[in-house]
Amino acid sequence: MKIKTELIKFDQGLDLESGERLDTFDLMVETYGQLNTDKDNGILICHAFSGNHHAAGKTADSAVLGWWDEIIGPGKAIDTDIFFVVCSNNLGGCSGSSGPLSTNPETGESYGKDFPSVSVTDWVNSQKLLTDHLGISKWHMVVGGSLGGMQALQWSISYPKKVKKAGIFATATKSSTQNIAMNEVGREAIRKDKNFMGGDYLKHSVKPKNGLKAARMLGHITYSSEEIMDQKFGRKFQDIKSKIEGTVDYEVENYLQYKGEKFSDTFDANSYILMTKAMDGYDASYSSNGSLENVMKKIQAKLLVVGFDSDWLYPPKRSKEIQLAAMNVDIECSCVILKGDQGHDSFLFASERFVNIIKGFLKSK
Amino acid sequence: MKIKTELIKFDQGLDLESGERLDTFDLMVETYGQLNTDKDNGILICHAFSGNHHAAGKTADSAVLGWWDEIIGPGKAIDTDIFFVVCSNNLGGCSGSSGPLSTNPETGESYGKDFPSVSVTDWVNSQKLLTDHLGISKWHMVVGGSLGGMQALQWSISYPKKVKKAGIFATATKSSTQNIAMNEVGREAIRKDKNFMGGDYLKHSVKPKNGLKAARMLGHITYSSEEIMDQKFGRKFQDIKSKIEGTVDYEVENYLQYKGEKFSDTFDANSYILMTKAMDGYDASYSSNGSLENVMKKIQAKLLVVGFDSDWLYPPKRSKEIQLAAMNVDIECSCVILKGDQGHDSFLFASERFVNIIKGFLKSK
Repeated sequence: MKIKTELIKFDQGLDLESGERLDTFDLMVETYGQLNTDKDNGILICHAFSGNHHAAGKTADSAVLGWWDEIIGPGKAIDTDIFFVVCSNNLGGCSGSSGPLSTNPETGESYGKDFPSVSVTDWVNSQKLLTDHLGISKWHMVVGGSLGGMQALQWSISYPKKVKKAGIFATATKSSTQNIAMNEVGREAIRKDKNFMGGDYLKHSVKPKNGLKAARMLGHITYSSEEIMDQKFGRKFQDIKSKIEGTVDYEVENYLQYKGEKFSDTFDANSYILMTKAMDGYDASYSSNGSLENVMKKIQAKLLVVGFDSDWLYPPKRSKEIQLAAMNVDIECSCVILKGDQGHDSFLFASERFVNIIKGFLKSK
Repeated sequence: MKIKTELIKFDQGLDLESGERLDTFDLMVETYGQLNTDKDNGILICHAFSGNHHAAGKTADSAVLGWWDEIIGPGKAIDTDIFFVVCSNNLGGCSGSSGPLSTNPETGESYGKDFPSVSVTDWVNSQKLLTDHLGISKWHMVVGGSLGGMQALQWSISYPKKVKKAGIFATATKSSTQNIAMNEVGREAIRKDKNFMGGDYLKHSVKPKNGLKAARMLGHITYSSEEIMDQKFGRKFQDIKSKIEGTVDYEVENYLQYKGEKFSDTFDANSYILMTKAMDGYDASYSSNGSLENVMKKIQAKLLVVGFDSDWLYPPKRSKEIQLAAMNVDIECSCVILKGDQGHDSFLFASERFVNIIKGFLKSK
């Protein structure tokens, strides 16, 4: 599989929903496979909250397989022998695209907490500029799970002529109050970390690792489910020799400690806040005073909506809401609720049915 | 209603499940109504995680109504004109009973983090000594919700001859893996607060308020439910004038900030950790290698198990597990699943059906 990782500069800048403007910005982009001469085999992958541009394979920069490697590759559900697959790190992220870790050209210092608020629609608009840059006039599919699914939905609303098919997985047209509440607890843990310094931790050469860790531990609970945690860990006690913290009693505590610790080494706290605020703030129906039908009328793409039965972050009924609205305004939309062993995270894994459904959708006229 | 609040000293001490021993301990006890001459009208109330001995009415110490005032009082579900109602602050708590804030007689300083681990069974054993002290040979009912329901269940197992009826509300025979995981995130936020000082914050005259606040915010999400939060707050933006923190966008965030802040003013962090560890550690079937039936065989009390449909901390299926085990070993047990407007917290409120069910249970032979 041909993989290319590239930092692309956009000198035309971007007007953001908040009213602020980035005069220039960069996107870190990874592509898999080859764009055909008709330039009609492009698939845009939108990543979820903690994902990035590295969606598949291994690269010189990353010896770790991409986050959707089970789905993207030669012969896989999204077949890189057929499609030219593109994934970019979201604006405001911390994996190379312009974000809180980047240098603010006005000050010569890192943006930090002063990086402007970015919304799901802003991401879609930045990806539209990337689309133009690549010379692609219409994506064969725009696809993503969770926060990535929100982008796929918004793409089909914002740029109806540019999207042939949209894959909208494990997501919702807007976050629930509980989703927002959970995110706020995570942000609270980060903001109150003594090393957060009101968001100016970079200037003090410190990192609010403890807050990030607690936030991620909570995140992991929401990505899993009650049943899955019961099956995986039950009430098993942690072996003393492999305890990460002396305070740990149960395996599940140790697992969360491990996952949280690892995440806090790599993720940026200001990006965490920005990304979760974007997730909380998304409401597909916002531009039409809450009428999802009115907004979805514009869609020309064919939709595939997939939910997973064990997902309690964006449960199946959220997928069905999208299907219902689509039906009401005669948009072609298939909605499938799959058995998922991994709660919300199920969309990351290549179950046989999930793969067949994606393949069938890609082949369909 | 006659209310009496009293600190009772127990010089005989208590052997704890952990193997440690308290040579002496105090319980802060509140009573409502009058013990009759036959001493057979006593009802023991067991409080939940953040509750205390002040269950009803107002007192000289507390101008705030007790936490179960909707249920306990003259003419109410638990009628203090008929019953002598007793509630004590759990050992290890922070409302007057011996706990991390008390003076360790060996050192002359506060116990702090060195207060021994206390279990649900230890609480029941300490309440048994209180029972003897009051000269009550058999409770007409032992009752509680959530962590209090675990104590009511354990009372009927540990002291079968001392309990005529047990009211076991909004609880489970053991915490799920997800319950444990949520508690661990709360503890993590507390332990990593810069003012926690490894649990020695009292010695430094500081308080890990930020950690306590984040932990409580998360707690509130688990006590509520997705539907309730949606109904109560939806995606309404917080009015700028009443924002608690500048970072708040939504009403639900503001609400959690407010609740968390208030709690962190009054609760002790070491108690928080101790109480949640007791909750995580409880498993009614533990003494019988996981066989709930074997353990419940001993029960002589009549059981009333109540679950609430909107409770996702201890959902209805957890109540039904208790009923099923009771049926299998011929224990008299009624199980009712009620509509609850308040998620897990529904047991705190006096809906008409809930009140009638409790009254009927108390009157039954």
